[in-house]
Amino acid sequence: MGTMRVNDRTDERADGRVNDVVAHIEAERDRFLADLKEWLAIPSVSGDPARAGDVRRSAEWLAGNLRRRGWPTVEIWETPGHPAVYAEWPAEDPAAPAVVVYGHHDVQPVEPLEEWDTDPFTPVEKGDRLFGRGASDDKGQVFFHALGISASLAASGRKAPPVTVKLLVEGEEESGSVHFADLLRAHRERLACDAVVISDTTMWAADVPSMCTGMRGLAEAEVTLRGPSTDLHSGSFGGAVPNPLQAMAALLAGLHDADGRVTLPGFYDDVVPLTDEERALFARLPFDEEAWLKAAGDSRAAHGEKGYSTLERIWARPTAEINGIWGGHTGPGGKTIVPREAHAKLSFRLVAGQDPRKVQESFKAWVAENTPPGVEAEVRVGSGGVRPCFSPIDSAGVRAARRAMERAFGTEVLFTREGGSGPEADLADILDAPLIFVAVGLNDDRIHAPNEKVEIPLLLKGAEAAAYLWEELAAALR
Amino acid sequence: MGTMRVNDRTDERADGRVNDVVAHIEAERDRFLADLKEWLAIPSVSGDPARAGDVRRSAEWLAGNLRRRGWPTVEIWETPGHPAVYAEWPAEDPAAPAVVVYGHHDVQPVEPLEEWDTDPFTPVEKGDRLFGRGASDDKGQVFFHALGISASLAASGRKAPPVTVKLLVEGEEESGSVHFADLLRAHRERLACDAVVISDTTMWAADVPSMCTGMRGLAEAEVTLRGPSTDLHSGSFGGAVPNPLQAMAALLAGLHDADGRVTLPGFYDDVVPLTDEERALFARLPFDEEAWLKAAGDSRAAHGEKGYSTLERIWARPTAEINGIWGGHTGPGGKTIVPREAHAKLSFRLVAGQDPRKVQESFKAWVAENTPPGVEAEVRVGSGGVRPCFSPIDSAGVRAARRAMERAFGTEVLFTREGGSGPEADLADILDAPLIFVAVGLNDDRIHAPNEKVEIPLLLKGAEAAAYLWEELAAALR
Repeated sequence: MGTMRVNDRTDERADGRVNDVVAHIEAERDRFLADLKEWLAIPSVSGDPARAGDVRRSAEWLAGNLRRRGWPTVEIWETPGHPAVYAEWPAEDPAAPAVVVYGHHDVQPVEPLEEWDTDPFTPVEKGDRLFGRGASDDKGQVFFHALGISASLAASGRKAPPVTVKLLVEGEEESGSVHFADLLRAHRERLACDAVVISDTTMWAADVPSMCTGMRGLAEAEVTLRGPSTDLHSGSFGGAVPNPLQAMAALLAGLHDADGRVTLPGFYDDVVPLTDEERALFARLPFDEEAWLKAAGDSRAAHGEKGYSTLERIWARPTAEINGIWGGHTGPGGKTIVPREAHAKLSFRLVAGQDPRKVQESFKAWVAENTPPGVEAEVRVGSGGVRPCFSPIDSAGVRAARRAMERAFGTEVLFTREGGSGPEADLADILDAPLIFVAVGLNDDRIHAPNEKVEIPLLLKGAEAAAYLWEELAAALR
Repeated sequence: MGTMRVNDRTDERADGRVNDVVAHIEAERDRFLADLKEWLAIPSVSGDPARAGDVRRSAEWLAGNLRRRGWPTVEIWETPGHPAVYAEWPAEDPAAPAVVVYGHHDVQPVEPLEEWDTDPFTPVEKGDRLFGRGASDDKGQVFFHALGISASLAASGRKAPPVTVKLLVEGEEESGSVHFADLLRAHRERLACDAVVISDTTMWAADVPSMCTGMRGLAEAEVTLRGPSTDLHSGSFGGAVPNPLQAMAALLAGLHDADGRVTLPGFYDDVVPLTDEERALFARLPFDEEAWLKAAGDSRAAHGEKGYSTLERIWARPTAEINGIWGGHTGPGGKTIVPREAHAKLSFRLVAGQDPRKVQESFKAWVAENTPPGVEAEVRVGSGGVRPCFSPIDSAGVRAARRAMERAFGTEVLFTREGGSGPEADLADILDAPLIFVAVGLNDDRIHAPNEKVEIPLLLKGAEAAAYLWEELAAALR
């Protein structure tokens, strides 16, 4: 944290309200951390059936805490699995915009326990860091909103925020959000809003605050190619009948062209292209490709679609990946056969504008088209995949949130995206509202790993940004 | 057997010696079959360690039988595994050519036993057929030489054949001939010869007698492509680092061109091309491609190197086959990874002129050349493979043997090859002598399967052909 510029607050201190926000947060710091530690001590591991009672206890703790903090409406929302918490703080003006804030109160398992330096459910402060499962993902990031809204009210002297804040904290994010879309549909009217703030991602670095503007979607498929009804002796038949493994190699090799572009017809048609501004902002991120390659399993070279940087490739360009292939003899020694079947599992990461179902259908048609005579192809696509989500950097909501972040951090806020996929698109689709990612986690917070931590100064910055966010959004979304 | 023309002997009966040969064989028929049944009753399964004593008993039975039949020299040749039998009948003229006759006295396992209609080691005659393990592969075909030589002597009135006959009957063919090359090397001087007759293959059909003129060789290789040091999350890294499975698909897809030809540089340089005469003779075989495709695991279409027929492809053209591929996630469900490794096993069937070692080295170089940046390739080639063997149809030995076969069968003898690979090339290489395939097995003899049988009339034709063979070879090889 030595290089952080977050204390360089000269400009903001000229503004009295900033000082009130900061003063409130500083005054509340100890109570905020004490409360958060209480919450972190509840082992709300949603993936462990034995912890179901703890997940419920976590929801009840949050509901109780928010009630004590003065939220007018706090409810436990049941699902067929673990409960969510819903809390609402209406704006005074009934015509004010409404904003849903999304987070989750369940946490990842803690195994391997022996790799933790301290007990995962006994939160410990060490210097500027708070260690414990859920500190960053996602209890800490949910809870900064509780402090942010009180700082906002303290600074404004009002009894209600300038927008209606609807905090929705689910309890199944770490086990696949299996009931989340249904929960959204069931409460769609209560959750009606003008924007959804997601606080479950990361920033580029402690000294390079940033906002995520999108996550990739996902479409999966499994291909089976069938040749002879049984494995054949390659001496008797080899060279005169189609070999399904050879057909599979040819099929999958044809999925990319020489420029690393996916060859499915129309694959790029719906892609929302990167704007020049976004590419320029990505390029300003202090990206160390060598270090990234090292983190990428000591990958020896960057490789991908021609004409795009590594960050653009993983954040803003769709891909086709072969996740697994199998067929024929895979045991020890040789077996000279023409195998009967070949199998492959594939996944496509999708970006703004693309529809997983459409990609799956296009893949099916392409496989049928590219299977040689004498080979029978079957494509199974399973679920409908995950839709990509995307918030244009010039949208009103993103610009307002960026101003809030810049006021808190006192420096320019850059943009990132996430290469992975999550349930966030459901929020955008079902609530029909734009997403805004406001988060202060770091990539080295070791979420999903032993010794998860959060940087306390960043949590407080998150609270400060959240305090500014409501007035910025009130102005922007009206 | 209804369509067999083997009794249509008008032409040959004009020749008195033919009649003597046939008369001898007819007179000896019952003793020949009684002896063969005794031998077949010995369960000489070389692959079953519990049967080692039976394999030895089989060798001793054959040695004793040949001694009783008057062979001047009969020896048991020990190996580190199962013993072979060596029997020699020198020509009267010390300048006469010498011919090694190769066969084996060990047999395949009999499992699944419940699928046999009669006990595999209780030989049973049913009409023209003799059922029992080893009846066709290879005891029956070895033993017709015992009858053939006595018929030859009876017809000629001489005490010795016109060539020196050196019968070598190994005991490990069905378990990989692991000590055979060493045995040949150890006895190279005793086995010095002008030709090697192989009696361990098949004819096209009972009514279409034929001779094999070659077997394909074999070169095997295993490729490993390595990318990242660990499986990577395809959301975080997919599309920006090389995927070893994609590299493998591209590599293997590139192993054949659009005409189905293998792309390894120089792969076809050493191939002895099919002659027009051989192609014309192949084309005269009554080949039912539809039935063949059905036997090829209900394959839906023939497929292979452009410009060649199915028979040419499996017999006389080299191939590259992918025998197995594996890598990444191959279990149930999806796993969105960029996998760390990809593996493939390949085999090349080789034809006359090709050297397995050279092909393996060429493949290694080609893989290195065609592996994309960021991926590391390893090729393991294991053993030196199996060399192809080949006897030109216009060679003196093949022409002489064809005349002997035609005299016995009373009809034109066509040519085939075998697509598989065997130890026969060792005989040609180590003994430095051309191979001649003289055999009367049929593809429907169910060798290596339950209910193995041999057609008794064909065994007797084999004996007759063997009787003529020595005088034909004496004239041809001088």
